Amino acid sequence: MAEKLYLGLDIGGTAIKAGVCDGEGRLLHTVEGPTEGGQGAERILQNAVACARRCVEESQHGWDRIAAVGAGVPGFLDAARGVVKFSPNLPLAGFPLRDRLAEALGKPVSVGNDANAAALGEAWSGAGRGVSSCVLYTLGTGVGGGIVVNGQLIEGFTGMGGELGHMKVVPDLEAIQCGCGKKGCLETVSSATGIVRMAQGAVERGDRTSLALVENLTAKDVFDAAKAGDEVARRIIERAALYLGKSMALVAVIINPELFIIGGGLSQAGEFLIEQVREAFRKCALERAQEGVGIVAAALGNNAGVVGAAGLARRLAT
Amino acid sequence: MAEKLYLGLDIGGTAIKAGVCDGEGRLLHTVEGPTEGGQGAERILQNAVACARRCVEESQHGWDRIAAVGAGVPGFLDAARGVVKFSPNLPLAGFPLRDRLAEALGKPVSVGNDANAAALGEAWSGAGRGVSSCVLYTLGTGVGGGIVVNGQLIEGFTGMGGELGHMKVVPDLEAIQCGCGKKGCLETVSSATGIVRMAQGAVERGDRTSLALVENLTAKDVFDAAKAGDEVARRIIERAALYLGKSMALVAVIINPELFIIGGGLSQAGEFLIEQVREAFRKCALERAQEGVGIVAAALGNNAGVVGAAGLARRLAT
Repeated sequence: MAEKLYLGLDIGGTAIKAGVCDGEGRLLHTVEGPTEGGQGAERILQNAVACARRCVEESQHGWDRIAAVGAGVPGFLDAARGVVKFSPNLPLAGFPLRDRLAEALGKPVSVGNDANAAALGEAWSGAGRGVSSCVLYTLGTGVGGGIVVNGQLIEGFTGMGGELGHMKVVPDLEAIQCGCGKKGCLETVSSATGIVRMAQGAVERGDRTSLALVENLTAKDVFDAAKAGDEVARRIIERAALYLGKSMALVAVIINPELFIIGGGLSQAGEFLIEQVREAFRKCALERAQEGVGIVAAALGNNAGVVGAAGLARRLAT
Repeated sequence: MAEKLYLGLDIGGTAIKAGVCDGEGRLLHTVEGPTEGGQGAERILQNAVACARRCVEESQHGWDRIAAVGAGVPGFLDAARGVVKFSPNLPLAGFPLRDRLAEALGKPVSVGNDANAAALGEAWSGAGRGVSSCVLYTLGTGVGGGIVVNGQLIEGFTGMGGELGHMKVVPDLEAIQCGCGKKGCLETVSSATGIVRMAQGAVERGDRTSLALVENLTAKDVFDAAKAGDEVARRIIERAALYLGKSMALVAVIINPELFIIGGGLSQAGEFLIEQVREAFRKCALERAQEGVGIVAAALGNNAGVVGAAGLARRLAT
């Protein structure tokens, strides 16, 4: 019998990506299409189904090889019922995504949070391949995360497992309000938004920095300035790295993972960022909890989500 | 065929407890004997073996009913090799406890950290029975812990999973040094030692408190004074509860467990302590991560360790 294949769907705010993976998490084919979230939940479903069919067709493996389908969505899910509870950027609240996809595609379907799916993807065939446990930090507009222990996602009782961006790590004296309503969350500092906010603050205060000359500051501008030796930019990145390291020191005595993986847009800063995170972690973490523990960049890039969604599917079919 | 039974050994600093459990985690019989740690590792082994044999004999179930043996020890273990790496109070470092017990008892043996074993016990047939995931805080001389998700212990890459007492939660300005070498660990505040230290500090500062009249202050004295309305004692307990709640707010966005369980000596303060922890958790935790989440007292008392050790055994035999 031919090897089972798994179809992953990464349903994002603007694009849907579909991918066919083999049982080792190798991505055999991938296609993209629009989400068109503004057109409502039914349109998102139609687009996801079209993307899925096109991907399998183009892959030339045939529908019968697909054992199951997985879908990652940005938001919180009722995993048991397969229903989206809340999605900040898509009109999917209350939508029974799992059953509707299963109906349309004629396959068993598993759905999950997109950051968790990305962690599962990295654990399966990315930077975490072969390790016993890993924790993914996705550094983008916010800070997302996902935790995989012995191949199993820690999704949590209400789907809040791996919501690492909302660890309160910034002391009250310097804490600002987070989008979640609490103060001092990791993502207020260690996200692209946090880095830009700190840079704008420095410029507004009149700090001597090359960033004052940049219009429409982005996190990349701050990284570039820091790499070029701008002291203000350097301190901002150092602060973002410090709180990442502090949060990892906490995770290290709770989960004690073998590997931390840094993904998302900010991970493009590469070793410049990661080496600073390692240094902060080394300084903050209990010695026994950092023995042999690695901190590395994600390996699957934008494909982590679709590979992980295929990994969600694999749970159903093995 | 008669139902399989499991033998648990809780090897403590002064006493060894053995217990026979059925497949539901019900403790059918338990006996205790001395550890005699001062006499070396071989004596500890002899005593554990004697305790195990006596327990099964007295239980009248017969050795053939015992499917496997589990042992919890205070310290860090190399779980894969079954060797004790470090035990603060027992001369077991480097001792191949698993293989020596297996040899002596003629059964498969699993060994683990005692706090993890206690968490497994509470999850199996104690306060966490039937929940999808729970986190046990053991509040005693220090603060230990253990995490169980879907029936599986999170032991960690180097055995540091659930070392909740070493979460850094106290801000630098008020942090003191912990036994682990770091500053601001939860156990500097929320353990019996931490509570006594804060009380002694208050007395030495000359704060107006009934505790000034107590010789050889214990944590129980501080709880009693707080319950009787002593304002200084009340604030000390409030502080211990606050940092417990803060640490739970962090765990809630990492693991998002269904239930937090409070065990250990301090849990004897009961609802007086737990209600304050609940209040701190409610205030600090992200809303979605506290929906439906409970905080309760442990149910198995001093038997959690021996039941959990039997639970370690059950992993081998099912």
